[in-house]
Amino acid sequence: MPTVAVIPHPNAPVELREVPTPELERDSALFDVDLSEVCGTDVYLQQGRLQGVPYPLVPGHVSVGRLSRIRGTLSDIEGRAFREGDRVTFLDVHGTCNACWYCLVAKATTRCPNRKVYGITYGLRDGLCGGWAEQVYLKPGTRCLRLAAEPETFMAGGCALPTALHAVERAEIAIGDRVLVLGSGPVGINVIILSLMRGALSVICIGAPMNRLAAATQAGASAVLNFEEHNETERWEWILELTNGRGADVTIEATGSPAAVVHAMRFTRDAGRVVVVGQYTDHGPLSTAAAFNPHLDLNKKHLDVRGCWGSDFSHFYRSAQITSDPVRAAPWISLQTNLSRYALGDANQALADVAEGRVLKALIAPR
Amino acid sequence: MPTVAVIPHPNAPVELREVPTPELERDSALFDVDLSEVCGTDVYLQQGRLQGVPYPLVPGHVSVGRLSRIRGTLSDIEGRAFREGDRVTFLDVHGTCNACWYCLVAKATTRCPNRKVYGITYGLRDGLCGGWAEQVYLKPGTRCLRLAAEPETFMAGGCALPTALHAVERAEIAIGDRVLVLGSGPVGINVIILSLMRGALSVICIGAPMNRLAAATQAGASAVLNFEEHNETERWEWILELTNGRGADVTIEATGSPAAVVHAMRFTRDAGRVVVVGQYTDHGPLSTAAAFNPHLDLNKKHLDVRGCWGSDFSHFYRSAQITSDPVRAAPWISLQTNLSRYALGDANQALADVAEGRVLKALIAPR
Amino acid sequence: MPTVAVIPHPNAPVELREVPTPELERDSALFDVDLSEVCGTDVYLQQGRLQGVPYPLVPGHVSVGRLSRIRGTLSDIEGRAFREGDRVTFLDVHGTCNACWYCLVAKATTRCPNRKVYGITYGLRDGLCGGWAEQVYLKPGTRCLRLAAEPETFMAGGCALPTALHAVERAEIAIGDRVLVLGSGPVGINVIILSLMRGALSVICIGAPMNRLAAATQAGASAVLNFEEHNETERWEWILELTNGRGADVTIEATGSPAAVVHAMRFTRDAGRVVVVGQYTDHGPLSTAAAFNPHLDLNKKHLDVRGCWGSDFSHFYRSAQITSDPVRAAPWISLQTNLSRYALGDANQALADVAEGRVLKALIAPR
Amino acid sequence: MPTVAVIPHPNAPVELREVPTPELERDSALFDVDLSEVCGTDVYLQQGRLQGVPYPLVPGHVSVGRLSRIRGTLSDIEGRAFREGDRVTFLDVHGTCNACWYCLVAKATTRCPNRKVYGITYGLRDGLCGGWAEQVYLKPGTRCLRLAAEPETFMAGGCALPTALHAVERAEIAIGDRVLVLGSGPVGINVIILSLMRGALSVICIGAPMNRLAAATQAGASAVLNFEEHNETERWEWILELTNGRGADVTIEATGSPAAVVHAMRFTRDAGRVVVVGQYTDHGPLSTAAAFNPHLDLNKKHLDVRGCWGSDFSHFYRSAQITSDPVRAAPWISLQTNLSRYALGDANQALADVAEGRVLKALIAPR
Repeated sequence: MPTVAVIPHPNAPVELREVPTPELERDSALFDVDLSEVCGTDVYLQQGRLQGVPYPLVPGHVSVGRLSRIRGTLSDIEGRAFREGDRVTFLDVHGTCNACWYCLVAKATTRCPNRKVYGITYGLRDGLCGGWAEQVYLKPGTRCLRLAAEPETFMAGGCALPTALHAVERAEIAIGDRVLVLGSGPVGINVIILSLMRGALSVICIGAPMNRLAAATQAGASAVLNFEEHNETERWEWILELTNGRGADVTIEATGSPAAVVHAMRFTRDAGRVVVVGQYTDHGPLSTAAAFNPHLDLNKKHLDVRGCWGSDFSHFYRSAQITSDPVRAAPWISLQTNLSRYALGDANQALADVAEGRVLKALIAPR
Repeated sequence: MPTVAVIPHPNAPVELREVPTPELERDSALFDVDLSEVCGTDVYLQQGRLQGVPYPLVPGHVSVGRLSRIRGTLSDIEGRAFREGDRVTFLDVHGTCNACWYCLVAKATTRCPNRKVYGITYGLRDGLCGGWAEQVYLKPGTRCLRLAAEPETFMAGGCALPTALHAVERAEIAIGDRVLVLGSGPVGINVIILSLMRGALSVICIGAPMNRLAAATQAGASAVLNFEEHNETERWEWILELTNGRGADVTIEATGSPAAVVHAMRFTRDAGRVVVVGQYTDHGPLSTAAAFNPHLDLNKKHLDVRGCWGSDFSHFYRSAQITSDPVRAAPWISLQTNLSRYALGDANQALADVAEGRVLKALIAPR
Repeated sequence: MPTVAVIPHPNAPVELREVPTPELERDSALFDVDLSEVCGTDVYLQQGRLQGVPYPLVPGHVSVGRLSRIRGTLSDIEGRAFREGDRVTFLDVHGTCNACWYCLVAKATTRCPNRKVYGITYGLRDGLCGGWAEQVYLKPGTRCLRLAAEPETFMAGGCALPTALHAVERAEIAIGDRVLVLGSGPVGINVIILSLMRGALSVICIGAPMNRLAAATQAGASAVLNFEEHNETERWEWILELTNGRGADVTIEATGSPAAVVHAMRFTRDAGRVVVVGQYTDHGPLSTAAAFNPHLDLNKKHLDVRGCWGSDFSHFYRSAQITSDPVRAAPWISLQTNLSRYALGDANQALADVAEGRVLKALIAPR
Repeated sequence: MPTVAVIPHPNAPVELREVPTPELERDSALFDVDLSEVCGTDVYLQQGRLQGVPYPLVPGHVSVGRLSRIRGTLSDIEGRAFREGDRVTFLDVHGTCNACWYCLVAKATTRCPNRKVYGITYGLRDGLCGGWAEQVYLKPGTRCLRLAAEPETFMAGGCALPTALHAVERAEIAIGDRVLVLGSGPVGINVIILSLMRGALSVICIGAPMNRLAAATQAGASAVLNFEEHNETERWEWILELTNGRGADVTIEATGSPAAVVHAMRFTRDAGRVVVVGQYTDHGPLSTAAAFNPHLDLNKKHLDVRGCWGSDFSHFYRSAQITSDPVRAAPWISLQTNLSRYALGDANQALADVAEGRVLKALIAPR
């Protein structure tokens, strides 16, 4: 009977439970968890801020481990069957249907209404469906990936890496562009790394607190600014100085604060691009103070503003590829120093540390 | 001494003046005006709502007429020299520099800081620079176009046509898309025509007043709704019914109302596109009532929102091409019934009629 | 026992056979054929010119009919279950896997190695898998579409319509472009219609024989040229005259002749686009006469040349949408006069008529 | 009287001449050459293989030096006036007209028929118009760029850098792609560097001779193959092994050999992209041996094949930006060891060394 960490209902502390090992369906598997991530979404889950979440719930959407039991056949995208004992990770999104209008006509698979997410929209009633557990049950159709990278290197990226990769893909950075990143949490840090990998001349970052800005610098940001110490005007002047007086060519918003979306537009040069990837939780409408002026902030600037929701298998696959390559993996190897490990029984401490920004990346190591 | 219609200063009525014929510089020309347009921007000019406008000012940015005098050589883009007597129109934008960072690196020529616009940012002090006049002085470097179309057909599109063409180009409509147009003024009407020309399955329009919605129907809209008679919820339900319950694939905002920008996002299906082309004048920030929620309205929807500023020679050229083609011109030939002509001395009446929406398209016929 | 028309082996005439009605798997259906198409590919199938085809084979990949029996649940992409008696068509491509590298990473689903095509790569051993039959067995996972269009209207497009739609999508025609279509078979004819629907200023066509060029004119081509009567130089001069001396903005090759690919490049203006959709069968390498000069034909011209293989559900769906819309369907309604119907027993005659270009579009009406 | 090196007519050796210093037109300048490049095009110029070249000719299109005299005003793209003594480089392309159909409608400025190139299509009759000279006369409208980079670092890229940047821009490499470069000359080497800078997972290169392949490795290629020692089949097997059995995601052809264009298509995976940037000189049509099969090599593969001609100011500007940045410049600083300097009087030796591939990059240092 594997042990799992459960959020029983919103605002309740995480508690440990023992859950029966499931009967395996055809072409499914059991996955022994080595590491599972604690991310900002998990904090919101515990606070009950996401809609449509089926409590009780085992958090943990991105995990690394081993296939301990396979029934039937489970293959990778090259068509090679997995074997018991293989080290893998799996895409947290499951059940993208390839049969609905969004999948087949709009080709917007991250908006497929049938997709489910391990550790977020699959609850305990759906089985062993979260990574804060000794085992996860991989339902038929779960997309597994052989992991050549070191587990710690891959998890230094974690779920923020494919999210950031999707955002950077949508940002269409050109070689020589100056990029501004708003936010210095895990998504922001990965956006910095990937913007440089895409050819940005330089990346600057506005965020907080100082330990996260230090990580931003470590990730390659050429300049950082603490937004808690500078008002909007000061930030704009700082940006102008670093962008030849025009604003950023591309701005990627990864903050969680509604006002940052309007700032992202303002801080970008005319005819530039803004990607909004920091608004995964409903924080309500813009405040009056951050008033959005469509003439000045959008139309006259001839801006492109792109929302970016979720990620698909391609982002996950490419994330695994680059963190598995000895040369490309270097930034994440360097980030490994920022990982903090917690036992399954310390999940509440992990959540608190993430919520307060005391750690950059917390991992649950269940065994 | 040609007569011109002048706005002497903001909020003053238009008055007629006689102005000396200028000395022609090398490679410049005099243009005898047949028809010049009265558009919404002219109303704002008279009301002093645009910044950086050099009063006194002769309005009229899109005009049709004849080259009555040429000094030196003036050629079309095929390199063929114009002759005196040729019927032409000219691009209102002049002086896009092809030498600045925006022109050469960003390739965002509609944001070139050196560009000037006849009838808007060129004032009377710059010479005979507006179309509400017997003559316009075409400075060296003005981009002229031989006009094969009937003047009335071309002017039925007017300045709204290249503006709408730019917007529809940015909208990347696919064959079979359902398009929503917000606004039933000249830009909205042209967007309807061009969206159908680009392959939309259907175009629906929300606007006002009824005479403009009738023009929208005439232009090809398959359904129209008067926004003055339906609140946001009712509009959304109407849209859902006409879009298989998902919202529009593409929404083009052409209203002039800040709130419409947020409505445009809301009325679009997930992973769709919004083009904002209706915010050419500063109407201030969004009201609290129209509160913009970046999570629900943008990020979660995975939307593309694209500001669209100005138009360049390619839009102007293509506009002339399609209104000159017997088959393609049909929608504008049909719109000619909506043209209202005014003498130069009736410019105040023309402005009032446009301001109140009593006419769809007013033209000044100076001679 | 439904009757089917079978190609027993390459170069053998089609013969009729009776085949037992299959046992229905869960979520499968029986489809009673009203009309099934005879296209150029079927001629090649009979001639044994396609590789990997499993003879004996029942041809017929695009068909219209009714669901006569359903076991389990079969739903459309809106999630609405089909009922017995519904009029439908179905995507001939089956089994695009959504699990391989091409589906998930490259997002090039028409190159998925697991896809199968009814009437082409499914043979008689796979069951009732072709449309030249009283019934087709729709395996689980077959993508059905409720058909609102008149069967004859939809079939006037036939399989050529989604193929052409994919090509036109890849051609990225801009409003006002001059388009050249090489080939006047069903794909060429549909490309003409769709290029105009996408906003081409004009479409010209080089093809043969005269009855097909007449259909090209009927479809909207503003000029046509019989390639059998004009050599390459004469064609080029004809094109220059119709394109302001520059060549076509966009050329779509739909001929089946290898040399036409190089002609397509040559006939296109510098920095234009070429889509190659006419090389579905291996006709061997270019002859020496049609020598391809990469400097002159491609690099110096700064061309985009795009191969276009197959079509996916989105093309099929959009094809059904536009042929179901009373306004959009007009060109195909007009093409219905070119349809020739054959009984199942006259399939050999149908093949011969298509092979010789005596008919534009042949249909099998099995009942 | 500055000394210049002149090719008097095709196939004649370079000779030195003294030329009178020109009278400066308004807004022009004299440029004292520090370094000027010897590239493959110069070899072809000496061999008379380019059409429309006005001999006698002073070669040298990309150069670094100082503005020694300015008449009137010469400004950079930020609008800041240059002063005498400033270290600059200038775009070799001059006179892109911003007034023709290609500039204004097609927006294909590298195909503007009015553009001229210093050192290639400007001959000695046009003045001091090549870099193999003590001085160059910068005509009005020449686009100068302040050079913050070390001259040797910028010239280690040379004219190959903006050419390669344009090619890589058109290649649309995604993070994690596997890139194949055909050719190991200066363009190929710069393509390797820039493909990695754009996020390629790995870049492999097929070229010759060994010293250039060593430079390819130094530039970051993870594997190289000498095409002189391996036939087409062996090359394909080598590629398959390094690309998971599929072929390259993106192939960039930079060889000068017509057959390589067809190889580039074959060596690329289905639905991948090929950029052709190695066919700047007419080497005639494909040989029969390299027969191009449009079905197998293009249509069935669903390939994108993109010719890439010239480069514009944006590529030149971004090249200067990245070679001026201490972090980004690293690959070119490393390439500086491959530079070979020649006095003006040794230009024939420089040409011979480049023609035989004995040096990777030859520079003329006229003073």
